Amino acid sequence: MNSPARSTSKHVRMQINTRRLLSRLDDLAAIGALPGSGVQRLAFSEEDLAGRNWVQGHLEALGVEVRIDQVGNLFGILHPEPRFAGSGAVMFGSHTDTVGRAGRLDGSLGVVAALEALEVIVASDWRPARPLILASFVNEEGVRYMPDMMGSLYHAGDLDLATVYAARDRDGVSIQEELERLNYAGSGHLSDLVIDSFLELHIEQGPVLESNGADIGIVTGVQGLSWFEVTVDGASNHAGTTPMELRRDAGKHAAELTAQLRDLTGTMAGLRLTIGSMSWQPNLINVIPDRVVFTIDVRHPDPAGLEEAEARIQALLLAWHLPGKGLTVSSRPLARVAPCAFSERVVAAVSGAVEGASLMGHRMISGAGHDAHILSRCYEAGMIFIPSRGGVSHHPDEYSTDEQIVDGAQVLLHSVMTLADHPVSAT
Amino acid sequence: MNSPARSTSKHVRMQINTRRLLSRLDDLAAIGALPGSGVQRLAFSEEDLAGRNWVQGHLEALGVEVRIDQVGNLFGILHPEPRFAGSGAVMFGSHTDTVGRAGRLDGSLGVVAALEALEVIVASDWRPARPLILASFVNEEGVRYMPDMMGSLYHAGDLDLATVYAARDRDGVSIQEELERLNYAGSGHLSDLVIDSFLELHIEQGPVLESNGADIGIVTGVQGLSWFEVTVDGASNHAGTTPMELRRDAGKHAAELTAQLRDLTGTMAGLRLTIGSMSWQPNLINVIPDRVVFTIDVRHPDPAGLEEAEARIQALLLAWHLPGKGLTVSSRPLARVAPCAFSERVVAAVSGAVEGASLMGHRMISGAGHDAHILSRCYEAGMIFIPSRGGVSHHPDEYSTDEQIVDGAQVLLHSVMTLADHPVSAT
Repeated sequence: MNSPARSTSKHVRMQINTRRLLSRLDDLAAIGALPGSGVQRLAFSEEDLAGRNWVQGHLEALGVEVRIDQVGNLFGILHPEPRFAGSGAVMFGSHTDTVGRAGRLDGSLGVVAALEALEVIVASDWRPARPLILASFVNEEGVRYMPDMMGSLYHAGDLDLATVYAARDRDGVSIQEELERLNYAGSGHLSDLVIDSFLELHIEQGPVLESNGADIGIVTGVQGLSWFEVTVDGASNHAGTTPMELRRDAGKHAAELTAQLRDLTGTMAGLRLTIGSMSWQPNLINVIPDRVVFTIDVRHPDPAGLEEAEARIQALLLAWHLPGKGLTVSSRPLARVAPCAFSERVVAAVSGAVEGASLMGHRMISGAGHDAHILSRCYEAGMIFIPSRGGVSHHPDEYSTDEQIVDGAQVLLHSVMTLADHPVSAT
Repeated sequence: MNSPARSTSKHVRMQINTRRLLSRLDDLAAIGALPGSGVQRLAFSEEDLAGRNWVQGHLEALGVEVRIDQVGNLFGILHPEPRFAGSGAVMFGSHTDTVGRAGRLDGSLGVVAALEALEVIVASDWRPARPLILASFVNEEGVRYMPDMMGSLYHAGDLDLATVYAARDRDGVSIQEELERLNYAGSGHLSDLVIDSFLELHIEQGPVLESNGADIGIVTGVQGLSWFEVTVDGASNHAGTTPMELRRDAGKHAAELTAQLRDLTGTMAGLRLTIGSMSWQPNLINVIPDRVVFTIDVRHPDPAGLEEAEARIQALLLAWHLPGKGLTVSSRPLARVAPCAFSERVVAAVSGAVEGASLMGHRMISGAGHDAHILSRCYEAGMIFIPSRGGVSHHPDEYSTDEQIVDGAQVLLHSVMTLADHPVSAT
C-alpha cells in the first residue's frame, strides 16, 4: 500500500533543528523557574498551566489541530492524507509538570523533542501514512495530587473523571477547583481516532547508560512498582527514667524492620526496594518514640517477581507485628503498577533509528514509571532514553549534554517516521 | 542553740491541708488547659506568666517577701526570727512551665506542695531557725527555648544573662523580647541571703516506685546526661532507577548506625540510650534519602560511666564516617549535665520524714534531670519522688493518686522542717 511518491530512504537524513530544540528547552525551563536554580510546575498550578499553554501555542503556530480533554491533557494532531484516514495513529510525547524543585529535562525533553519532530515533519515534504499525535499528559509526577501518571491513566480509561476531580492537595484544594479556577480543562477527546502506538523520549534518571558508555537506551519494558505505607506503634516514655528492658521503642522496632526489608534485595534478583520516607512521633530528643511511619517502594521487572516481593514484605510486616510485646505493625497499599514489556514493533523502530544514526544503543528496562508504561496497556508502546549524568533527576542538577539531547530527539523523529510510514492499522 | 520554745516532736504531727493542696493543683492546671485534656504553659508564654502570677498571688497572700529575678525566677521568702538572721536558708520548690501537651503534676506538684508547706508553717506556731525560700524556676522544660533547667542554671551562675536573653524560639522570638512584652522579669536577687539547701518534690516520671510498691522515692542522685545531634549524609537518587549496589542511602546508614548505638546499652551497666528524634530529607516515597538527622540522649549515674559512654558513641560515629563510600557522619553536642550525688544530710532529712509518716520509702537515682540537679552544684540538694502511674509523664495521662500526692507534700513539709529546725550555717 505504499504510495509511489513515498521514500523512507530519502528522509532518513531529515534532521531536527538543534538550535531551536535547545532554545525551546530553555524557554520552557524559564516557566516556573525558581530563584537560584531549578523549576517548579506542580500539576494544576498556574506555572503548570503556563507550561502547557506554551506547548499549545507552538502547536497552533504549526497549524495542527489542538484538542484538550476534560482533565487537561493536550494533544496536537497532524492528520494524514485523506486516503490514510482511519489508519492507527502514532502518538508521542511526555509531560510538562514537574516535581517541587526539578531540573529542566524530566518530561519537558519528551514534549519539546516531540514538538521539534512534528515541526520538522510539517516543514518537510514527507507525509505520514497515519495521524501523528503529540501528547502532553497532565500530572505525571504525582507530587501535588496522587496518583502519579494521572493524565495517562485517565486517557487509558484506568481512572475515571470523578476520581480525578475529587483528588485534593495538602491544602484541601481539589483538582476540580483548580481546573475551574485556571480554566485548565477542555472538552476535546480522541474517540474519533484509532491509536496504534505511543512513543516517549525521556532522560534515563539512572546510571545505566552512563556506566555502559551508551548514547541511547532502547527501552524494552518498565519495572512494576508497589508502594506501601507502614505504621509502627509502640509507647512513648521518658528517655531518662524508663529502663531499657521496659521500653516499647517504635523507632528501634522500625529500624530493625526496615533493615530486614532492605535485606530482601539480597535474596531476589532484579528487586529494588527503597525506604524513602520516615517520620517519627513525638520526635523529641528525650522521649521514646511511640509511632514511626515509613514508606516502602518496591520494584521488579517481572510480574511474578513483583508479587513474590510483595508477599515477602507482607510476611515480614506480619512477623514484626508483636501486640503481645506492645509493638504493632500495620500497612496500607499506596499505589501499584504492574511491570510491562514494550511492543516489539516499537522497540524495533527505535532500534532501527539508533542504527540509522550510527549511535550506540543499549537495550534496557526502565526503573521509573512513565506515561508510556500506562499507555502500554492499550497501545503498542515504547521509550527512548538518553543518559542522565550521575543518574540525577528530580533535582536542578539533572543534566544531559546538548549532544545527548539532540541524539534523543533525532531518534524520536526517525522512530516516529518509521512507525508512521505505513498505513497499517494495529487494531 | 535550740530555743527552749522549740519542740520538733510536738510538730511532727503538723499536717498539710489535703483539700487545699488538691484543689490548688486543679486551679493551676486550669491555667493553660488545652481543649479536651492536657495543659500547655510553654516557658515565657502568656500562660506561663499566668501560672507564675498565680503562685505569686498566693505568696503575697501569705505575707512572705516575694522577689522575681532578672530571668523571671520567683522566690517567696519567710524570714526567721532576727536571732537566726544569716543562717543558711532552706530553699524548696520546682517549676510551673510545661511541655507542649503536659499533665498537671510535672513541676506544678513541687511548687503547689511547697506553697502548701509554707502556708502550714506560717499558720503554725512552729518557727524555722533559717530562712525558708519557696522557689519556682523558669523554663525547666526547655521545649520552647534551649537549654532546659534554664532558670536554675542562671540562678546557679552556670548561664549568664546575655545568653538567656539571646535564646530564640522556632519563630525567632527571643527571651528578651518575651520578657519585655509580658513584663515577666524583675530586679530581685538573693545575694543578701546565704542558702544552705534545696529540696524538690516531683513525680518520678518512671516505673521504679510503682514496680517496687513504694510510696516515696528517696532520691540519692541524678543520672548524668549528654545529648548529641548526628547528621548522616549520603546521596539522593531515584528509587526505581538506581541499582542497589550503587546507592549511598543515608536512611539505611542511619538505621544501621542507630542499631549499634542502641546495642551499647547491652555492654554497659546503668547506661540508658535513646534515639528520640529523627528526620529524613527529602523524605519522599520514591527518592533515596540523602540526609538523616537524629539525636542521641545518653544517661548514666556515674561520671566515669557517662564519659565512657560518650567515648564509645564517638568511636562508633567515627567508624561509620565513610567518606570513601560517599556516606559521612558528623555530630555536635547539644547539652551535657554531669551526674550528681545528693547531699547525705538532705537525703537523711527526707528519709526521716518518710519514716515519721510510716511510709514505704525506696532509695533511687533520678533518671530525669531536674532543677535540684543543677542546684546540687552550689547547695546541699535532694529530691522526693512520688510514683507515676505507668511511668507516664509529659502527657495528659500523667497520674498519681491523691494519696500519693498528699504523702509527697507531707514528706516535703517535714523534710523542710527538719532542715530548718537548727540554725546551722552550711557555709
